[in-house]
Amino acid sequence: MGIDEIILLEHGSGGKATERLIKEVFLACFKKVPLLDSAVLSFESNNLAFTTDSFVVDPIFFPGGNIGSLAVHGTVNDLAMVGARPLYLSAAFILEEGLLLDELKKIAASMAEAAKKAGVEIVCGDTKVVPRGKGDKVYINTTGIGLIPQGVSLDPCHIKEGDKVIVSGPIADHGLAVLAARENLGLEGLKSDSQALNHVCAALLKEFKDAVRVMRDPTRGGLASVLHEFSQASQKGIFLYEEKIPIRPQVKAGCEILGLDPLYLASEGRFVLVCEASFSGEIVRFLRQFDECQGAAEIGEVVASPQGLYLQTTFGGKRPVPPLSGEPLPRIC
Amino acid sequence: MGIDEIILLEHGSGGKATERLIKEVFLACFKKVPLLDSAVLSFESNNLAFTTDSFVVDPIFFPGGNIGSLAVHGTVNDLAMVGARPLYLSAAFILEEGLLLDELKKIAASMAEAAKKAGVEIVCGDTKVVPRGKGDKVYINTTGIGLIPQGVSLDPCHIKEGDKVIVSGPIADHGLAVLAARENLGLEGLKSDSQALNHVCAALLKEFKDAVRVMRDPTRGGLASVLHEFSQASQKGIFLYEEKIPIRPQVKAGCEILGLDPLYLASEGRFVLVCEASFSGEIVRFLRQFDECQGAAEIGEVVASPQGLYLQTTFGGKRPVPPLSGEPLPRIC
Repeated sequence: MGIDEIILLEHGSGGKATERLIKEVFLACFKKVPLLDSAVLSFESNNLAFTTDSFVVDPIFFPGGNIGSLAVHGTVNDLAMVGARPLYLSAAFILEEGLLLDELKKIAASMAEAAKKAGVEIVCGDTKVVPRGKGDKVYINTTGIGLIPQGVSLDPCHIKEGDKVIVSGPIADHGLAVLAARENLGLEGLKSDSQALNHVCAALLKEFKDAVRVMRDPTRGGLASVLHEFSQASQKGIFLYEEKIPIRPQVKAGCEILGLDPLYLASEGRFVLVCEASFSGEIVRFLRQFDECQGAAEIGEVVASPQGLYLQTTFGGKRPVPPLSGEPLPRIC
Repeated sequence: MGIDEIILLEHGSGGKATERLIKEVFLACFKKVPLLDSAVLSFESNNLAFTTDSFVVDPIFFPGGNIGSLAVHGTVNDLAMVGARPLYLSAAFILEEGLLLDELKKIAASMAEAAKKAGVEIVCGDTKVVPRGKGDKVYINTTGIGLIPQGVSLDPCHIKEGDKVIVSGPIADHGLAVLAARENLGLEGLKSDSQALNHVCAALLKEFKDAVRVMRDPTRGGLASVLHEFSQASQKGIFLYEEKIPIRPQVKAGCEILGLDPLYLASEGRFVLVCEASFSGEIVRFLRQFDECQGAAEIGEVVASPQGLYLQTTFGGKRPVPPLSGEPLPRIC
């Protein structure tokens, strides 16, 4: 059968195949199911954000977190990225027969702790059990509701020539840590960056609402996929300064050994933002006050043309960074 | 290992084991994750309903529907049961590698059709892909937001002695139809009752807001499980008149052949309500005007004691109907 007649792992990559699947299957039916993570809904006189994510990470426990904390952080961050204050989460579990109850208890406790720290309440839930071999220990869906303050409107279409690109900390930790844990790669010092970003994003928007064009967390598909999306939506080009992109030495070394490009690896506690150039330095300094954003850095700029994503290498060269295709890392989130 | 050290299929039954799991694992961590299906949240001056459900039905296509239409109806109905007008749904897919894209397209089309008919919008989504053998074709989570009109407060605690119990149509169709399709039982004339109930519930509450104490859709665990929950919450007893409970002849015959009790089988397009006795006849007539509720009937009454659920048999006897234990029918929804 042809590549697009059956579902392949790469349909879940967050790259080109995912985009094609969403366009062909879901957009054809639900005109509003967005490529964006959160829907922004108008509700009475408020703007509500509404977002859903299913988590199928393997393994369910990894350095720096587990599927439960990840499921809370992921959805909280999707709300934070549209400028929303997260209010409520639902939590739905698909359990595989044979899962250890102790593992489920640890996961639930992590969710509760993560929710408390983020200041969000888990208010409804669901539990299904599937027979052995029809799941993989536990899958969790979290869906979140948040409230968007008046006047906040973040959109990649607002991106202008000359704008700067900032990332809130080192990239690719989560993706590599999960991969290393799954494959028992024996790489040292890796740890997921999974954390909630809503407090720092709220503070940022309070100070710099008019300077920030758009924010996004580079999860599946990594930094490169987010910036491709920004480039497409704004019809602009994005130039990254290779030497300025923060990557931990362990992550860089691990990627070199494995032949992976960190630009495509997931973070789960970082965000990238585009802002008006004149505020860039101030925003970086502001972010670095927060524990969540110690490694914030300006990493690139927006140009009128050529469109697409380019890397200005340390040696002065310039190479295009293509959109993700294929599935380098399944089940990272 | 002990029965409660690993997850068993019966933890997903909707019966005693599910209740125990929720209490021990989830309530211990999330004080608000309810035994109720929908959370009722106060939001500015509004009451919002928020509910989540994952659907893992097997087979994914069955007489009368598929996992897509079911996922929309199920969540719409959970909102309708707390008196909410459903507004928005999210839809999150866990796809197994190898799923036929054509099947996914059919499912998505059914979801869109069901949503349109129910007057609800699917506004955000997510897609994950898991390797072969780590899922079963497709699992769908839908999470819904609805608005509860001022003055509506449905709660099994409002149930009073003398109140009547009404069911909106024949029970157990969905559960038996799915089971028969899965096991190729060759039973004729079975069809799921899966349908959205929000329009009829809205009309009902508009007319009879003060007479209706509580409504609930008897899905997993069936009519018996819902009425047990009502009995426990209200500290009252419920007597059912066996001969008045509407059950289609094909369903009755199928249950007899298989040794199943229809009182425990799921419906996905019916609801049971408790109301003030003097309005019972009027409510039954009102419901019967709607296509969704042709078979509405008064089927029982509330007594002060004994607590629990009892069946007044056709021959004048009275037998207790115990709470569901074990897992008679996995993966019905």
